[in-house]
Order: sequence, then C-alpha cells, then structure tokens
Amino acid sequence: MSDLADRIAAANARALDRLWGASPVLTGVRPAHEVIPALLGRRLLHAGPPLSAARMCGPMRGAAVGAILLEGWAEDEEDAAALLEAGAVELACTHDHGAVGPMAGIISPSMPVLVVEDRDGIRACCPLNEGVGAVLRFGAYGPPVLERLAWLRDVCAPTLDAALREAGGLPLVPLMGRALAMGDEMHQRNAAATALLVRELAPALVGAVPAAAAREVLAFLAATDQFFLNVAMAACKCMTSRIEGIPCCTLVTAMSRNGVEFGLRVSGLGETWFTAPAPFPQGLYFPGYGPDDASPDLGDSAIVETVGLGGFAMAAAPAVTGFVGLPSAREAEAVTRAMGEITAGRSPHWRIPALDFDGVPAGIDIRKVVALQVAPVINTGIAHRRAGVGQIGAGVVRAPLAAFERALEAFAARYGA
Amino acid sequence: MSDLADRIAAANARALDRLWGASPVLTGVRPAHEVIPALLGRRLLHAGPPLSAARMCGPMRGAAVGAILLEGWAEDEEDAAALLEAGAVELACTHDHGAVGPMAGIISPSMPVLVVEDRDGIRACCPLNEGVGAVLRFGAYGPPVLERLAWLRDVCAPTLDAALREAGGLPLVPLMGRALAMGDEMHQRNAAATALLVRELAPALVGAVPAAAAREVLAFLAATDQFFLNVAMAACKCMTSRIEGIPCCTLVTAMSRNGVEFGLRVSGLGETWFTAPAPFPQGLYFPGYGPDDASPDLGDSAIVETVGLGGFAMAAAPAVTGFVGLPSAREAEAVTRAMGEITAGRSPHWRIPALDFDGVPAGIDIRKVVALQVAPVINTGIAHRRAGVGQIGAGVVRAPLAAFERALEAFAARYGA
Repeated sequence: MSDLADRIAAANARALDRLWGASPVLTGVRPAHEVIPALLGRRLLHAGPPLSAARMCGPMRGAAVGAILLEGWAEDEEDAAALLEAGAVELACTHDHGAVGPMAGIISPSMPVLVVEDRDGIRACCPLNEGVGAVLRFGAYGPPVLERLAWLRDVCAPTLDAALREAGGLPLVPLMGRALAMGDEMHQRNAAATALLVRELAPALVGAVPAAAAREVLAFLAATDQFFLNVAMAACKCMTSRIEGIPCCTLVTAMSRNGVEFGLRVSGLGETWFTAPAPFPQGLYFPGYGPDDASPDLGDSAIVETVGLGGFAMAAAPAVTGFVGLPSAREAEAVTRAMGEITAGRSPHWRIPALDFDGVPAGIDIRKVVALQVAPVINTGIAHRRAGVGQIGAGVVRAPLAAFERALEAFAARYGA
Repeated sequence: MSDLADRIAAANARALDRLWGASPVLTGVRPAHEVIPALLGRRLLHAGPPLSAARMCGPMRGAAVGAILLEGWAEDEEDAAALLEAGAVELACTHDHGAVGPMAGIISPSMPVLVVEDRDGIRACCPLNEGVGAVLRFGAYGPPVLERLAWLRDVCAPTLDAALREAGGLPLVPLMGRALAMGDEMHQRNAAATALLVRELAPALVGAVPAAAAREVLAFLAATDQFFLNVAMAACKCMTSRIEGIPCCTLVTAMSRNGVEFGLRVSGLGETWFTAPAPFPQGLYFPGYGPDDASPDLGDSAIVETVGLGGFAMAAAPAVTGFVGLPSAREAEAVTRAMGEITAGRSPHWRIPALDFDGVPAGIDIRKVVALQVAPVINTGIAHRRAGVGQIGAGVVRAPLAAFERALEAFAARYGA
C-alpha cells in the first residue's frame, strides 16, 4: 500500500512535469481529413464518450444533420436524419482521434480544424469557433449556419492558415498566460486571448493574403469574443495528450460530455471512459428560455478545466462571475481555491494576479475528488434540448462524483489497494 | 456658508453629470500644427505648468532638443540647446492648448497627434506613443529616437488616420470600460486596451492603406503595449475639458508635472495652476539605476488619474501591483477604496469586476483631499535626471498636499468661506 502510494506520487509528479513542460503551438488551420486520418468516407466525430446515433441528444443530432448537409451526403434534412438513423454515417469520438470539439463537437471531413502541435510531434485539433447565435455546435443547421460553415472553410481557414505559416506558428502557453492576467478564464470568457491572437497574427495575415480576405477575417475576429475558446481547447488537449497512459498515475486526462453521459479518463487507466449521467447546467438563460428547455450538458470543452482553466481559473475572471451564478469576485476566488484542494499542483506558467500570482490549480487527482467529495467545476454553455434551435444560455456544472468513484474503483482493481 | 455648501454640491453634481455624459471618440491622427493653432513658427508645447527654458529639468530639455532637431530648426545638439537657451524657441504649456503629453510632453508643429473629439466639438490631442527604450518623452534624442519619430510622422500616423476615417472613428468610453475589465488601469498597463484597439481597427486599416504600411503599423502596435496610454490621455483631457470653469465647483480638472513643479487646476478657479515642488517617484528601477539618478516627476499623464484611472483604478490591475510598490492584490483594492474617499462619485461606465463592478472613483474634490489629508495616487514612469538618457524605471507618486491646500485657500478667497 505504502509502496503503491509512493509509485502514485512518482507517477503524478512525472505527469505534472510533462504537463508544465508542454509547449503547444498553433501551427495551422487545415481540413479535418488531412490531420485526422480516421475521417475518411462518411464518418463524423462527436464530443464525449462514444455513443450511437440512436442515443444522441437533440443538439448533437442537429449538428450531425448539419454536418451531413455540409458534406453533401444528403439533399435535405429528412434524408440526412434518415442516413444517420440507418447507420449509414459512421460515428467515432473526438478524443480517440486527437481532437476536441465544443458542445456537440461534430467534426466532418471537410471542416477546417485548428492544428496545435508540440515539439515532440504531439498534435491536437479543434474546429473553428463559429461565433454566436444559431451555430452548428449548439445543434442549429439552417441555411445561415451552413453558409457560415462554408465561409469558415473557404475563406477564414485558408487565410488563418496562411497567416500562421507566415508567422511561423503562434506559441500558446505565453499567450494564454497573458490572457489569464487580462480577465479570461478561457472557457466562458476569451475576449483577451482573442484580442491578443489578433494582435499577434494581424501583421502576418496582412502580408499573407489579399486585402479583401484579410479584412473579412479580421472583421470576423473582431466580432467573435469566443474565437480563442477553440484554440484553448486544442492546446489543452495537446497538453493532456502528454500525460496519457502513465502507469500508476491518478490524474485525469480528459473530462467530456456527449449530452447523455459525462465521462472521464485517467492517465493510469488508459483510454477507458468512466461515466455517469450528464448533469444539467445551472446558469442564466436567454429571454424566453428556462431549465425545461435545456439539454443535459455536452461538449469536449471541459478539457480546459482538466488543465486548470475555465471553472478552475474563476478567480482570474471576475467579469463572468454572474454567468456562473457566483455572487461576488470573492466567491470566484473561493472556487479556484477549492479546485486547488483536488489537484496535484499549480501551473508555473499560468498565474492569477488577483491571487497574488498563484498558479492555476491543475492535475485533477481522482483520489482527492473522492476523498473530499469535491466535484470539479466546469463552466459551460446551455443548448436547447431539441435539434435545430441552438444556444439558450450559459452557466456551470459540477462533474458527477459517481464517475470519479467508478474510476477510483477501477484504479484499485487494476493496481491493488 | 451653508448656502455656499449647497452651491458647491450643485456645481459638483453638474460637473459629474458632464463627466459621465462625455463621449470621446478617437477620430484621427493629424500633424499637431493642424489641430493646435498655437503651434506656428518655432514654438514647442511642454507638459505641466508653464516654465522657462532655463528652469527645465534634464529630460524635458533633452526632449526639447530632440524636437528642435526633428523640426530642422538646428543642425546639431549644441545649436539646438543654444536656440533653446537664447529664447529663440517659444514655449507654451500643453494644457493651455487642448493637448496633453506624457513625461516631457514636448509637442512640435510637425509631430502627429491623436485627435479625440466629443459630440459637442470639444477636442483634445496627444502625441503618439513611441514604444519603449530610448524615447523622446523620457529625454532621449539620439539618431534612433529621431528616426522613429520620423517613421511615426511619415508612416504610422497617416496609416492610423486613414484607418480611423475608414472606421468612422473609435468610441473610447466603451473600449476603456472593456480594458478595465481586462486588467488595465490605463496608466502603468495598457496591454488590453491596445489589443482591443488593434482588434477594432485592423479591418479598416487593411482596407485603407497598402499592405506594406498596414503590416509595419500592425507590427509596431503588436510590440507596443503602452500604445493606448496616449489615447487614454487624450480621452481623459477631452473629458475634463467638459468640466472646466464651472462656478463653485471644487473638482480638479487637471493634475500635471513639469519636472520642477506639480500643478493642479480646479474647475471653479479656471486656468490658474496651484503648484508645489514635483515629488520624486517611488518605484522599481531598471538594472544599473537607482533613486539618485531620477528626475523629479513629470508629465501630463496624471490626467488619467483625474478621471479615475491609473492609480485610482489600481484594483483593476493586480498584474502591476509590484511596479507601484504594493505587496498584494488586496492592497491594490485598498488604494482604489482610499481614492474613493477623496472623490465626488464613481463612474457608471468604467467598472471594476474585482470590486464587484463598483465604478472607478472620479472627480477629485480639493475639500476632501485637504480635510482627510489623503493625497491622490499617481502611477508614473521614472526618467533619468540628465538629458539624453531616457527611462530608468516606473513607480508611483503622491500628489503633493500643499498644492491642494493652496487651491482650497484660493477657493475660499474667491467664493468666501
């Protein structure tokens, strides 16, 4: 037992070293099929643990229908839904293919993805943020949604890709550190990180593409505060990839939700998902909507909490305390301190000025979560439960403790306890 | 007496209404002589209360020499210094001509100035920020300094001016409000405001000028975190212009320093400067320098404190607490609360998330400063006391209480007390 505790301590320390040693760089924006070999033929990736088309929640079904239409695999909505239900479109989960996607997390072969790479060849990707309003990730798939996706694919992605090549890539750890000192927790709020990205890339962008394209893309970035969320997700997935599969390591490598189940993975337990029913978010609703309209929580975006951002970095973002139901900036600081109780360390790179430059708490230890019964806090969007509607609010969820308890049981069974 | 108190209360309330009703917009970047009619012939403006060339501190003298060389009024440094000492260059003070300038605050006729205008025709201007290192505003005037000034005049200014025209101007109150929620107090730290400015202007900039100029200017902005300081100064001067000359008003309309004297103006007392010796900043020095090398404080930048930013908004900028000698983020909050004791109100537009969205304290009341003996806090840069060297540190000063006491005596003499 004591021997196991020592081995766990050593494994977790090694994992933290690898996490803090990460150096993710945004290197390009490429068609998904180029960087995700599995995306051949009629196949879609989706967020969260694997599930069949029959079990998909409304917003994920809506996003899948939209992606099928975007790819031209069906003529209309009914045909697309029929293909999906007939099993004529294969499904796989993002995390199994080095990818993450917000909310429904649907990625189809022609969609552009942000490509983040580390020195040692580890790579992760995430689709581009579509902006706000009716968007695919929240389950909307009307003509304006598909038109915007086509623009992202045909104009925005090649422009950003050219700018990133011209710039030689954009290192993300320092940029994200600066954004944390500028009020972003990089889940609910990405205004600073997005502005810093524009400031860094604008000179290269202007040099790399014709003025008309540069102008369109810069105008889109100026209007899209959450653009950086998807970059942060790819960065965090790239970082957690470095700590997967370390024997005896009790740290979480992924938390995600598919709208039906919440799932987590643990470094020492490989690719197994430990699941529990997806919780419903608590939060603020757009006018005309309420809790009865909400889908259970979904999306891979909790990858940012896995690395100490989002809910874990609440103290950095007092401007969004209201969104996540906190009454004051002090309460936001208390959330970050509480997450420090269930994590193995604090980032030496990402520090919070309001906490006198304490690092964000990261490396969620399933032993601490279960022992203290403190559930990880996840900032999140709220999707309408029906396909085709879209976002209806934003708020917060607690990761279900039951999933951590199952993971700890499996850990004990595997390593003996 | 009670009657006077009522009149003061009414005057101060009116002043605050006018201050909060301000709507400064950055409309262009123009040669100073175009927008400052007084800048004809061989004339320079300088920061702070008026003073003769003979009394100028080292850094202001250095900046004046640099401006004379830039204008081509002299062939070399010695000739320039001789012109200055012979009185062959007229001097006037920025605040008397709707202008403000950081540190030495030297403005010569051909220098480009940021032009900020309000609906009602009130206008204020400020030179462009030169970036860091050896810069004119800190008294350096070597060839690289003059080359950069020429680039600002010939490339940067026309580019920004074209972008601002294309964009129809940049409203500053909302942008500055966003920056306050992103860790800027807009004196010591302007990283967020500068990034937001780039994000807003980049699309128009790309459309308005050739790619080569756009790229150079965007690269300069990406490297110049303090670019927005000068925009904020012009905005704040534009705002305080709205509350000048209100009978019975006890609120401060300007605080400034010329390197010899600190001076302030009071609304109900018109354009009279009330002065005291300029204090020495407390702060952090660049390697190799210390307090013995420092010039007494100088510059018009305290105009931002006059409107509730800078030291008054310390709680918004925990990232720069170290620069201004504060041991913790909590202490930064205490500074903002203390400044709330000597001000007449809080901004309804500029709010600090860390203080649960309290507005910044603004409208410095000379009665409160004297009664409580609480001196306004001013964040500042530190210049070497000799001409030609430049910046050697950054820190904080307290406005000298003696100047406020003199102003209050004058107020009593004028209005009876």
